Amino acid sequence: MVVREMLQPHRHHFQADLEAVVRCIEACYECAQACTSCADACLGEPNVENLRRCITLNLNCAAICEATGQILSRQTETDWNLLLSQVSACVIACQLCGDECQKHAHHHQHCQVCADACRRCEEACQRLTATVPTVAH
Amino acid sequence: MVVREMLQPHRHHFQADLEAVVRCIEACYECAQACTSCADACLGEPNVENLRRCITLNLNCAAICEATGQILSRQTETDWNLLLSQVSACVIACQLCGDECQKHAHHHQHCQVCADACRRCEEACQRLTATVPTVAH
Amino acid sequence: MVVREMLQPHRHHFQADLEAVVRCIEACYECAQACTSCADACLGEPNVENLRRCITLNLNCAAICEATGQILSRQTETDWNLLLSQVSACVIACQLCGDECQKHAHHHQHCQVCADACRRCEEACQRLTATVPTVAH
Amino acid sequence: MVVREMLQPHRHHFQADLEAVVRCIEACYECAQACTSCADACLGEPNVENLRRCITLNLNCAAICEATGQILSRQTETDWNLLLSQVSACVIACQLCGDECQKHAHHHQHCQVCADACRRCEEACQRLTATVPTVAH
Repeated sequence: MVVREMLQPHRHHFQADLEAVVRCIEACYECAQACTSCADACLGEPNVENLRRCITLNLNCAAICEATGQILSRQTETDWNLLLSQVSACVIACQLCGDECQKHAHHHQHCQVCADACRRCEEACQRLTATVPTVAH
Repeated sequence: MVVREMLQPHRHHFQADLEAVVRCIEACYECAQACTSCADACLGEPNVENLRRCITLNLNCAAICEATGQILSRQTETDWNLLLSQVSACVIACQLCGDECQKHAHHHQHCQVCADACRRCEEACQRLTATVPTVAH
Repeated sequence: MVVREMLQPHRHHFQADLEAVVRCIEACYECAQACTSCADACLGEPNVENLRRCITLNLNCAAICEATGQILSRQTETDWNLLLSQVSACVIACQLCGDECQKHAHHHQHCQVCADACRRCEEACQRLTATVPTVAH
Repeated sequence: MVVREMLQPHRHHFQADLEAVVRCIEACYECAQACTSCADACLGEPNVENLRRCITLNLNCAAICEATGQILSRQTETDWNLLLSQVSACVIACQLCGDECQKHAHHHQHCQVCADACRRCEEACQRLTATVPTVAH
């Protein structure tokens, strides 16, 4: 990923900590891919009928992480209230998906890898939220 | 759109009002397309340098409406806390984008059409939120 | 959908037939939603283990239709070779998904509705391709 | 990115070379982010009116790379004809976007970084296509 290099043009105008934004974008794209892949691997498991909630949460988390990573990548005339609201939905998606994947991690290695990606994304979202000055909320 | 026909299999298990969900999904897809198109039309205007905020809000609103319409379309083992959190981000995106488009509506017809689509989506999101029982929040 | 109103600003520069583009964009968004919804309804069926291929094709068709509808909505300085290449991938996605859904249409009404949406999108893509002048290929 | 770990469950059934698929998915997600970010940085440039084609190609390339990375991440009951058709559209998107970004690379560092990401994605797509056995085409 070349997130840091791409955000350089905006470095002077940033309301948020550059490193926190970079890390959050990277985590969102990683988590989007992991969740897309985990939904697919769950679908291929013999006990797919026990993985329905996991698949739905994976697909929803992937969609939300993609949107979040995308809007965080846009910093020209951006609105931080909007970004923080979307990041907040992303935190919930990652928590729910990470918890569900963890339940199946003992039997399915892909669920463990995905749960870890969800945790990293959740943490990156929360760290970003903490760095945005109150005035912007 | 065939949203209503597609949601029939889930009609018995619904925590939310079926018509409110159908309407919200339709409005999200309509708004996603309108915002994508409005960003593009703004980009082609002679005064594009005055439309930077409009373009960014359009692109963000499109991404958020797509994600929201997509996750509302998934009702198997869904989680309403997650859906409501994403719908809440969608309300903010539609408000900001609708307000900005309205400012340019006098000069650009595409901004008027897009502002109207944003309003419809915002209202559909708020009506859906109002129908979901408190216990699900 | 307000596709036609949104494309008006571009009406003078069009290499393709405006109505064919409008129809194709509408069909792409409709099909994207129907496929997302059908994947979800299949996931909720008791015989989900027989619907694996249907779910994968639905999710892939949804992603491809979303991308296709989105890039067709952008007409400022667009490149028709790129658009036609993506439309061509969309035709294949709709054919495969429509065929697979049709196999299950007897047992699952959502598969019938989705198969019909895939057919409409496939036809709209092929009609659009036929209207773009050879010089643009 | 955890692409390799996520694809392990499918390693025995692969028609394509695992490393080529992993590399292509990583390149698609990287390029999607870079193009989203480059469109935004271009929009913020003083000479935005000269960057219209660059912005449109960036946004289209981002949408196509996202769809391509997503469908390559799904390997349960997948269809390689569909994947190759989408990968082929992705090659064209990356070529056009990379060429256009390269024209502006002298003045805009973000265009250079994005042009490089487009080249890597184009190459990864072509290498993947070369590894898929003829029978699957």
